[in-house]
Amino acid sequence: MKSLDTVTFLSDFGWCGGYVAACEATIVRISWNARVFHVSHDVPVRDVAAAALVLARVAPLYPEAVHLAVVDPGVGTTRRPLALSTARGHFLVGPDNGLLLDAGTGLGGLVAGWALDIGKVRSNAGLHPKRVSTTFHGRDLFAPASALLAAGVDPASMGQPIDLATLVRLAPMPARAADGGISTPVIEVDRFGNVGLGLPFTELPHGAGAESKFVIEVVGDGTPEWTARVVQTYGDLAAGELGLVRDSWDQAALALNGASAAEFLGVRRGVMVTLKPAGKVRS
Amino acid sequence: MKSLDTVTFLSDFGWCGGYVAACEATIVRISWNARVFHVSHDVPVRDVAAAALVLARVAPLYPEAVHLAVVDPGVGTTRRPLALSTARGHFLVGPDNGLLLDAGTGLGGLVAGWALDIGKVRSNAGLHPKRVSTTFHGRDLFAPASALLAAGVDPASMGQPIDLATLVRLAPMPARAADGGISTPVIEVDRFGNVGLGLPFTELPHGAGAESKFVIEVVGDGTPEWTARVVQTYGDLAAGELGLVRDSWDQAALALNGASAAEFLGVRRGVMVTLKPAGKVRS
Amino acid sequence: MKSLDTVTFLSDFGWCGGYVAACEATIVRISWNARVFHVSHDVPVRDVAAAALVLARVAPLYPEAVHLAVVDPGVGTTRRPLALSTARGHFLVGPDNGLLLDAGTGLGGLVAGWALDIGKVRSNAGLHPKRVSTTFHGRDLFAPASALLAAGVDPASMGQPIDLATLVRLAPMPARAADGGISTPVIEVDRFGNVGLGLPFTELPHGAGAESKFVIEVVGDGTPEWTARVVQTYGDLAAGELGLVRDSWDQAALALNGASAAEFLGVRRGVMVTLKPAGKVRS
Repeated sequence: MKSLDTVTFLSDFGWCGGYVAACEATIVRISWNARVFHVSHDVPVRDVAAAALVLARVAPLYPEAVHLAVVDPGVGTTRRPLALSTARGHFLVGPDNGLLLDAGTGLGGLVAGWALDIGKVRSNAGLHPKRVSTTFHGRDLFAPASALLAAGVDPASMGQPIDLATLVRLAPMPARAADGGISTPVIEVDRFGNVGLGLPFTELPHGAGAESKFVIEVVGDGTPEWTARVVQTYGDLAAGELGLVRDSWDQAALALNGASAAEFLGVRRGVMVTLKPAGKVRS
Repeated sequence: MKSLDTVTFLSDFGWCGGYVAACEATIVRISWNARVFHVSHDVPVRDVAAAALVLARVAPLYPEAVHLAVVDPGVGTTRRPLALSTARGHFLVGPDNGLLLDAGTGLGGLVAGWALDIGKVRSNAGLHPKRVSTTFHGRDLFAPASALLAAGVDPASMGQPIDLATLVRLAPMPARAADGGISTPVIEVDRFGNVGLGLPFTELPHGAGAESKFVIEVVGDGTPEWTARVVQTYGDLAAGELGLVRDSWDQAALALNGASAAEFLGVRRGVMVTLKPAGKVRS
Repeated sequence: MKSLDTVTFLSDFGWCGGYVAACEATIVRISWNARVFHVSHDVPVRDVAAAALVLARVAPLYPEAVHLAVVDPGVGTTRRPLALSTARGHFLVGPDNGLLLDAGTGLGGLVAGWALDIGKVRSNAGLHPKRVSTTFHGRDLFAPASALLAAGVDPASMGQPIDLATLVRLAPMPARAADGGISTPVIEVDRFGNVGLGLPFTELPHGAGAESKFVIEVVGDGTPEWTARVVQTYGDLAAGELGLVRDSWDQAALALNGASAAEFLGVRRGVMVTLKPAGKVRS
């Protein structure tokens, strides 16, 4: 098979200890030609859905690659370790907990999958078959499998084919119609305090043209409602004015100009927000 | 033009989401041979001057490179996107908000500049001309332009020449004479709690020879004054003794031995500090 | 000598300023072919032992490399700057404060050592001999030396041979028998809140077979004792149940399933914990 020589690496390990380095070291020891790109290791701890979102957004931006993703609260249990191939020639490697599926869609759809066999992977990689921890399959299984795939090794030599229909899927968190508006979860708060919503911008009620306004309510927090104005970018907002923008992933997002909307609203990932059209702005 | 194949990348994006990865992925997708070096993505959010300081310090240490820097609170507004060439053969890419200028000086001075045209950049890079966000020009404009420059593409094919005299400049924060001493802002607090001052060490009053002492006052905080002793390095200080050192960027800095001077003094970036000579130490 | 072209880099600098970038830039400016792998720059500030632990764990996982490690509270004092060679062909570069020794053991043992001469290193690297700070030997001495070693330069040309018996060693923190059990320090708390102990799992009293239980006491904190059950992995634990696992470095570690054991127990690195066998679980 063709050598990709490209591995991207996403985890919730953090950089404070040696986990990230242990995986990267293992990859380059097995496949010296592999280039490793760090996607993020600071996604919320054990938050599979948060990591799946990041992976789905960025994986399609890379050239053909093996995408290693390890957010794996079920490590060492019976959850399956996966290698998945995609229509666009990328691979996805990680636990069978829903982490990889949205990225697969963005890479043209899944083509085939294998349940990795730890003995076969380690044998292929020249690693001791028995020196395997029960708590760090990133280093002991997933990184070696990723290195082998990057070097062009056939995934069929590393495990058993699986039925893609049996893959574990995350529960969707869709936006829903709610009392004259729409209710949607906060799916992301970035370092700037922008509040990403689980709602494509184009699905905002009434089309949300320029100068539309929305009444914003944070579900269950007892605070007053806010009004947000649809704008093109942060700089269109006055100081302290809440805005509703089409974010860079085409989702609706709440933002302030030069300050944190998440702090302003007191919200974090997972909180529900309701948006109701408030008519056009008169100016 | 010559291919540099080196891109450095500085931003305030943080590593927690996918912003850094989205930019890096875009660069290597366009220019597979580019090596990307991460300068920092943890500079204070939206703090153009803090990022400009880091960039100016490290850019001259790299071999010839394209320096991509994105701290861009004005993204999507009329602020110009820039590519600048320097006398030493480096390029600087980022928004026209003052972020790039001090680095340009350290790279031998600016030679020419271009206002990037988003359509030309994306066309050159083989990207869809219209799929451009209003809030993430790092991914949609600056990273592609950097990748092209790293591959040797002529900047004149990516935008219009500009008059370097029209570039936006940051307001300087100079040290000033003040009541028998000198008043200077804190320009940096590092992870060790060292307090970097906006004052070259050689401009300390009276030359600040070995064993000089200075009275230190934090402007406007009502706390008592402190005394700091000029020393060569942290290890010359007793426990709890405040020192004044020539830091590794040749600035004056306040430090403790094995503890955080910033916590001790209760200061952060931007606070003003006054230093007055207190005579020689008698020992 | 053979060119290794591989540098790993560990420090307590953090990524917020330009320290990491300054070192990496210096390395690639001197040795363009060097690949630099970041181990961690987020180890606890000035904590030589914490960094030594991370380095010892990951250094043996890389292919032959120069391991640059800078946690250096004594920078600029008389502490010696070191280059050490190991039986497995790796090099270790950093201050003589105990940081490098455990890694040396894991790399087959130390073979030879040199006290780096800052003038010789900088001359070899083509750097100005005098432009050396007293507070940042990472950039001014250790990074250049690492770059030269990675390029195959003979360490004998960079300093004076030293007697390995004179190297500074860290005080060991061994587990000790204590009142019917064993007392051991917390040596690591990871991002998941797992509590790594200074006790190899195989040295747990009574062999700690499956289903053993231990009474856990945090020394000196006055809280009640806890019971921990020996399990294979996190997923074997009920919600809120404390577990004792063999961690991925073969140490005993306290853990919860899906939550932070460190927060639960109120412990951090350095705290002492006592473990006493509590008999088999009856189920």
